[in-house]
Amino acid sequence: MSAAAISLEVLENLRLELRRGCLVLAALAKLRSEYHGYALVKALADSGLDIDENTLYPLLRRLESQKLLVSNWRVEDKRNKRFYRLSEEGQSALEWLLVEWRNINGSIEKLVAAPLAAS
Amino acid sequence: MSAAAISLEVLENLRLELRRGCLVLAALAKLRSEYHGYALVKALADSGLDIDENTLYPLLRRLESQKLLVSNWRVEDKRNKRFYRLSEEGQSALEWLLVEWRNINGSIEKLVAAPLAAS
Repeated sequence: MSAAAISLEVLENLRLELRRGCLVLAALAKLRSEYHGYALVKALADSGLDIDENTLYPLLRRLESQKLLVSNWRVEDKRNKRFYRLSEEGQSALEWLLVEWRNINGSIEKLVAAPLAAS
Repeated sequence: MSAAAISLEVLENLRLELRRGCLVLAALAKLRSEYHGYALVKALADSGLDIDENTLYPLLRRLESQKLLVSNWRVEDKRNKRFYRLSEEGQSALEWLLVEWRNINGSIEKLVAAPLAAS
């Protein structure tokens, strides 16, 4: 496929927009296990979901303020690090968002498979 | 599943965040056929993707300014309406975003299926 006529900047922004929505879901799913911020960035990247530290860290703080995550400080490799994991409320939110995600995905796949409307 | 402990507002915002990312993809996919704005809102809702008119209309104008859509004014039911459809560039962007979407979806599904990391 050639997308030469579209500026790379436009494509890249569309891609970022598409990913941004799913990051909360991905972060909550990973945080069923405990991670500190940087380890989570690496774990998400290993799962194919690149996310900038400057995007993730504010997201983690927001999710904690919304009671979906809990955190505690602990020393690892001689450095004090903040570890996050899912709260009970976060577990419920994750299950709920996953259902929502699959509904959206089903809608999208049905939509792209549908024959074009007569115009 | 009980999500009683989480405020409905938090859940609703998470849901909106999740949907927002996929709206460009959904709008581009629908606009392989020509629609005017309000008809597109209804068509997306019929596909299970509710989107507010106040969100969609600016999105359509942005996508047109990015050359992914073309529009023309035409009278329908005695009213002048702006009809949008995918440009050639928009078709390329749609194919590209769909690949990206499926990658993201694959990553998410693998992630939620994965056993928890030892913590």
